[in-house]
Amino acid sequence: MAGFKHALDVTREQDFSAWYQAVVTGADLAENSTIRGCMVIKPYGFAIWELMQKILDDKFKEHDHVNAYFPLFIPLDLFEKEAEHVAGFAKEMAIVTHHRVEHRDGKLVPTSPLETPLAVRPTSELIIGESMARWVKSYRDLPLLVNQWCNVVRWEMRTRLFLRTTEFLWQEGHTAHETEEEARAETLLMHGVYKWFICDILKMFGIPGQKPEYDKFAGAVDTYTIEAMMQDGKALQSATSHYLGQNFSKAVGITFQGRDERLCHAHTTSWGISTRVIGGLIMSHSDDDGLNLPSAVAPYHVVIIPIVRDSADSADIMEYCTSLKKELSQKSIRAFVDRKEISPQNKKWDYVRKGVPLILEIGQREVNDELVCCTTRTTLEKGSMSRSEFVNRVASMVLEHDETLQKRCEDNCKRRLNSSVKTLGEMKEFFAGSGNGFVVAKFNPTVTDVSALDEMAVSVRCIPTQQSNTVGKCIITGTETETDAVFAKSY
Amino acid sequence: MAGFKHALDVTREQDFSAWYQAVVTGADLAENSTIRGCMVIKPYGFAIWELMQKILDDKFKEHDHVNAYFPLFIPLDLFEKEAEHVAGFAKEMAIVTHHRVEHRDGKLVPTSPLETPLAVRPTSELIIGESMARWVKSYRDLPLLVNQWCNVVRWEMRTRLFLRTTEFLWQEGHTAHETEEEARAETLLMHGVYKWFICDILKMFGIPGQKPEYDKFAGAVDTYTIEAMMQDGKALQSATSHYLGQNFSKAVGITFQGRDERLCHAHTTSWGISTRVIGGLIMSHSDDDGLNLPSAVAPYHVVIIPIVRDSADSADIMEYCTSLKKELSQKSIRAFVDRKEISPQNKKWDYVRKGVPLILEIGQREVNDELVCCTTRTTLEKGSMSRSEFVNRVASMVLEHDETLQKRCEDNCKRRLNSSVKTLGEMKEFFAGSGNGFVVAKFNPTVTDVSALDEMAVSVRCIPTQQSNTVGKCIITGTETETDAVFAKSY
Repeated sequence: MAGFKHALDVTREQDFSAWYQAVVTGADLAENSTIRGCMVIKPYGFAIWELMQKILDDKFKEHDHVNAYFPLFIPLDLFEKEAEHVAGFAKEMAIVTHHRVEHRDGKLVPTSPLETPLAVRPTSELIIGESMARWVKSYRDLPLLVNQWCNVVRWEMRTRLFLRTTEFLWQEGHTAHETEEEARAETLLMHGVYKWFICDILKMFGIPGQKPEYDKFAGAVDTYTIEAMMQDGKALQSATSHYLGQNFSKAVGITFQGRDERLCHAHTTSWGISTRVIGGLIMSHSDDDGLNLPSAVAPYHVVIIPIVRDSADSADIMEYCTSLKKELSQKSIRAFVDRKEISPQNKKWDYVRKGVPLILEIGQREVNDELVCCTTRTTLEKGSMSRSEFVNRVASMVLEHDETLQKRCEDNCKRRLNSSVKTLGEMKEFFAGSGNGFVVAKFNPTVTDVSALDEMAVSVRCIPTQQSNTVGKCIITGTETETDAVFAKSY
Repeated sequence: MAGFKHALDVTREQDFSAWYQAVVTGADLAENSTIRGCMVIKPYGFAIWELMQKILDDKFKEHDHVNAYFPLFIPLDLFEKEAEHVAGFAKEMAIVTHHRVEHRDGKLVPTSPLETPLAVRPTSELIIGESMARWVKSYRDLPLLVNQWCNVVRWEMRTRLFLRTTEFLWQEGHTAHETEEEARAETLLMHGVYKWFICDILKMFGIPGQKPEYDKFAGAVDTYTIEAMMQDGKALQSATSHYLGQNFSKAVGITFQGRDERLCHAHTTSWGISTRVIGGLIMSHSDDDGLNLPSAVAPYHVVIIPIVRDSADSADIMEYCTSLKKELSQKSIRAFVDRKEISPQNKKWDYVRKGVPLILEIGQREVNDELVCCTTRTTLEKGSMSRSEFVNRVASMVLEHDETLQKRCEDNCKRRLNSSVKTLGEMKEFFAGSGNGFVVAKFNPTVTDVSALDEMAVSVRCIPTQQSNTVGKCIITGTETETDAVFAKSY
């Protein structure tokens, strides 16, 4: 690759963090706003989120969930009802204290203080639970299977576009069940939906598993997670599903008359995935030329760039491009004709940076000979083929693109998966080198003091669902255990 | 109708306001939360909003608009940049002042005050404008056609479900253009989209027009509105579209290099419709038995209720219902099979209250003879027909349902439209009686003091697009004018 100029100013090897920022900017996905920690999701980035929403929303509804909408604000006295929960969020809540402003000394200042301050929701277990408490009377009213798409706010001191922002968008599912068994089945069902979404739809490399005791969601009995590996070997917690037991139903009073006519507390769950996953998608598939997108969430599968060198040809070329777009649309291929007046060479690289799977350049030669000139985003290979062949092959070319992405990501991640570490010393060696990645090692799941990992900046990411079922010594305590855990640095 | 028991406890004639609340509750659309002025949109109500969103979103995209997402928070110092705008919203803004809470004396209290307090967005002209200022450099970057679906907060002292709530959901379109002409064309284009949505899709009776000078959006040059008439003759402002001139682009600096290479300020627009329109839909079409829904936004066109009197028949009946649902789905009819274990008689009335256009009851007799027993929601007429005839006719039955709704609404509203009022005295007489409605009378559009209308609790709703082009005396000042205006009480 010597001498080859990449489409971004910085490569992954030079500076992974600067490269990430360059991919986001180069693809025009998002930008920082003037409000501390809040991002603007620009149209191309938002189009990816819309495609994600549609895929997930359809799947949730397939499983009988319904959408609803609950208040943005949560009174502080409601928050106090679940002690662990409030402890988990107290340090990062935006609080509304006034409901008016006035000019004083030429400056706008808040007036009309509220009696009870309101938290801007960091998550909605309590406020949705309170509604559920009103809705449930008998076991016949269960299960309640509710989902909400919304914004949430967690005050973050160090923010990064998509990965960690003060405000983010997400969906939060909240369900209430008659029995523990049903609630646990729901928790696992949605954990499975997330695994499908992250690994099969987004083609990311993710390890499903359970969070260790010390790192569960604040107020949960059990937390399930998909830990995805990024190209630098770090982990991104990509979607979580929680079995909440009766903790929240006792806090807000979700009671019902059971089959034996006795008053019972419901068992609840919650599960969510956020715009953070866009950051994970970027760090899984992008390369030194910019973004790469799996077809399911690519706003366009094909971009068609008219190359007009002589304005006399313009009408012919545009007509060819437009009719080609129409033909592709009929095959459910999302195609787009670029019409902006910038030089053709720049245009192609714009779409390379945006990760459009197939980039067509159409000039007078293509029109005359009924050809397309096609660049494949993953390989940047460029070739000519007849228009009819392209139209016939386009669906399989998109599939091939997806397979290339998935294989590339999987190969990279599997290389960084280490199962031979047996001691803390070996683990330190692994994480000290350039060999970042996931270490699968023995861990006693009841351990809550993991300070031995701190100097490596490593944490227990999950206890993977797939266990080796061998006995070994816990990497922290040295006690015998059967449990494997995944250790990694993380975002 | 003497002796006929309605499905609600209160009729429109008895108490319109209590009836409205009963329709909302009876159809299970929404409820008040424990947070002052914030509502919970329940699953059935939210399904209506989702259908509205899809219809509008597709139409916006057809007209080349793209969705994006901007911060929930607006720093107060940004708000100060447009004086009229801030004056319009100062009295109703929720203000975030702290970003942490702590326990003190056993109570959670806000800590870590912010340097600059943040308003929770009541609307996003300034925060989106600020992004646009970064995005626009040259006339080639224009137009920018952006839309956002989100929640907004306006602190309301007197709230009513859907009609007036502290938090509500909406879409807000924001566009920037090179010339006044283009921005004005966009304002009118979107005004036209709203007219189409409200009158043609929702089958409501709405009068499109312009807001008088004294009642424009805070910061706008011109505001266009659809004023819909409710069954009690009052007006509901249902969607607005604003030409903002260069007011906001000057406040936040949306400048670009024009074709003549000089620095220019963009001309901007904004336009929005909110969950408020669900309140308007309810008050347009519902009757003393509950909700009525036009098919475009009806979560189900057909509900199928199995009537099982002998459990031995249950499997047969369920199979018949399920296969019928499948057959209807293939015809793009949204059908739903009710499976809840409550008595059949209650079930039918549940769906009457929910406004499902066609309600089928299927018992053993229907299964044996391949029939359906169908109740039409608008007329409550019940009849039997063969299953195959129903499947063939269902699409046209849904259309007839829509026509019935539209005609009923139009007939009622036209009866309440008065064009003969010439003086304030006559107007007082009109609004003093039970004859609420819209008065079309002469109004000098430059008048800003309309206090003469206060004792009637009437306002100028709009200057309708359709003008009589006759000369007459302004109802307030007595001066001659050609302009007709619509006067009404309003929500």
